[in-house]
Order: sequence, then C-alpha cells, then structure tokens
Amino acid sequence: MRSPQESLRNGVLETSTPPHHHHHHQPHHFHSTVSLLKLRRFNTLILIFRFVSFCFCLASTIFMATNSSNLLTWADFTTLRVVLAANGIVAVYSLAEMGASIWEILKGTTVLPETIQVWFDFSHDQVFAYLLVSANVAGTTMVRTLRNDGHTCSVNSSFCVQSTISISLGYVGFLFLGFSSLLSGFRVVCFIINCSRFHL
Amino acid sequence: MRSPQESLRNGVLETSTPPHHHHHHQPHHFHSTVSLLKLRRFNTLILIFRFVSFCFCLASTIFMATNSSNLLTWADFTTLRVVLAANGIVAVYSLAEMGASIWEILKGTTVLPETIQVWFDFSHDQVFAYLLVSANVAGTTMVRTLRNDGHTCSVNSSFCVQSTISISLGYVGFLFLGFSSLLSGFRVVCFIINCSRFHL
Repeated sequence: MRSPQESLRNGVLETSTPPHHHHHHQPHHFHSTVSLLKLRRFNTLILIFRFVSFCFCLASTIFMATNSSNLLTWADFTTLRVVLAANGIVAVYSLAEMGASIWEILKGTTVLPETIQVWFDFSHDQVFAYLLVSANVAGTTMVRTLRNDGHTCSVNSSFCVQSTISISLGYVGFLFLGFSSLLSGFRVVCFIINCSRFHL
Repeated sequence: MRSPQESLRNGVLETSTPPHHHHHHQPHHFHSTVSLLKLRRFNTLILIFRFVSFCFCLASTIFMATNSSNLLTWADFTTLRVVLAANGIVAVYSLAEMGASIWEILKGTTVLPETIQVWFDFSHDQVFAYLLVSANVAGTTMVRTLRNDGHTCSVNSSFCVQSTISISLGYVGFLFLGFSSLLSGFRVVCFIINCSRFHL
C-alpha cells in the first residue's frame, strides 16, 4: 500500500501530465521535474538578461535626462530626445517582461496564452533591439559631429561626456536585449517543435 | 479496370502524397515532387528578395560614390564613407547569396553543407541587417545636422539631396534584407524541425 506522500506525489504528477500532449511517439510528455527544472533555469537566465538590460537602459535614460550644462540641454537636440525616448521605452518594456518572467517562474503559467506570449516576446525583442540600436547610433553620430565642430564640446565638455556615457550605457542595454532576443527566439523554435513551453 | 489516365493520376498522386506528411512516424527521406516544388518556390522568393536588396544597395553605393559637388565630397565625411561601405558590403553579400540561391535552384544542393549553409545565411542576414540600419541611421543623422546648420545645404543643395536619396535607397535595401532574414530564419526553424531543407 502506498503512503500518503507517495500518492500525493503521484497526484501531482498526474495533474501535470495533461493527456493532450502526445503527438509522436516520444515517451515523455508529462512535465517531468527535470524539464520543469530546465524551464525554470531558462526563465531565470532570461530574467537576468532582462534585469541587466533594464538597469543599463534606465541608467542611460537618467544620465540623458539630467544632461544639461548652462548653455545646452538634451531637449535642444531631437536626436538626444530620441535616445532618451528609446532607452526609456526599452527600460519600461524590460520591466514589464521581467514581471512576466517572474509571474511565470512563480505561477508556472504565462501571463498571456502561451502561443501569443512566446511570439509577443520574440517580436518585441526584435523591434526594440532595432529601435535601440538606431537611436544610439544616431546619438553617437550627433555627438561625434558636436566634437568635430571644434567649439561646442570645449565649452560644454561635461555635456558631451555625459551624452557619451548615456549612449554607451544604451549600447550595453542593447547587447543584453540582443541576448534576450536570442533566448526568446530559441524559445519560439522550441515552442514550434514541441507545441509547449516545457521541453527545452 | 482503371484507364491509363486514372492509374497515371494515381501514380502521380502516390508520389505526391508521401506517407510522411503526417509526421508522427518519420520514415521519410525521399523528396516528393510536391516538396521539391515548394522548396523551389521558396528559394525563388528568397532569390527575388535578395535581388531587390542587391539592386537598392548597389544603387545606393553608386549614388553615394558619385556624390560630390565643387566644395564637398562624400569622402570628407566619415559617416558617409560608412554608409557607402555598408551598402557596398551588403550589395556584394546579396550578390553572393543570389549565386548560392541560383546554384541551389539549378543543382538541387547547397553550396556549403546544408547545416552550415542554413545557419550561415541566417546569421549573416542578421548581422548585415544591423550593420546596414546602423550605417543608414548614422547617415540620416549627419545629413539632418548638415541641413540644420543653415549654410552647408543651401550652398551644396545637390550634395544634400543626393546623400538623402542614397540613404533612402539604403533603407529600402535594408527592408528587403529584413524580409530575406525572416525567410532564412524560417528556413532554420524548418531545418531544425525536419533535419532537412526539404519539407517546408
């Protein structure tokens, strides 16, 4: 006869073995503790990347927003406003995605339905990666022009330095957004192959 | 008794309805006429995108290379040199990929081994897409700065117009490179799922 613990554990296993997951002859389609563990590790990795990306984009936004000398302020330059906006948007997006990741790690389900969530993450990562890199490249070019024109950066050197720092932080944010995008792309592929988030 | 037409049609039907299309038991590695046709159509679509991308990037390169007024030339501006270089690189890459596509359509095999070819295409599409969009955004920012400084573009208006045209052509090239990248990404997914280029 089975002990209560054992039957409880079996009960748990049974509830986590939905019958609709068998589409080939692959013998494992209950969510074993191993695949749950792998999923959790994967989600934690994404969470870390998003957190780093969030930190750098937020720092970049703050650096840019506080960037004004006596003569110049970031709001005078459309390009720097674009840099600030793009970094701010990505920071907010990363925060939202962190929330979704934490939800998934804690509750075991995605916020949106699985299919939508997986594609939403991937497509938004792609779009925001292009947005962020475009904004930062535009900012870089503008600051380079300011440096080259001879007098602006010698009069307002702190302005130029702070812009450069802000843009550099944005590039690091972009790098980690790119990593997240790779992982979420990988997740889309896994989802297409297995029709499920579980099984990495 | 069946007429020759009928048995012929059945014969065709049999070759075009291989048992492997419900892909649970996967004993399939002959390539049916249907999947060959689909593959050819898919390759032709990629070829068209690459051709359009090639044309626009080449046009952009030529427009930029011939862009000089009495006072200014593209070579004076690092940013415009970057635009020219990026568009030139993507034009050459698109040409090479067109060659590979034509080879594949005619000979039925990829130039490099399948796995390498599929990943090569996708990764290079991604990298060059970022390169091209960065270069064009940088160019846009620079031309905007020139326009805003008051006198450069009023003295050299043809220079500014031609730069703008070249950069716009570059953006269209980027758009079609992005489409190619989507398709080659799709191809990677199909390859991972089926371990073969055939079966889209």
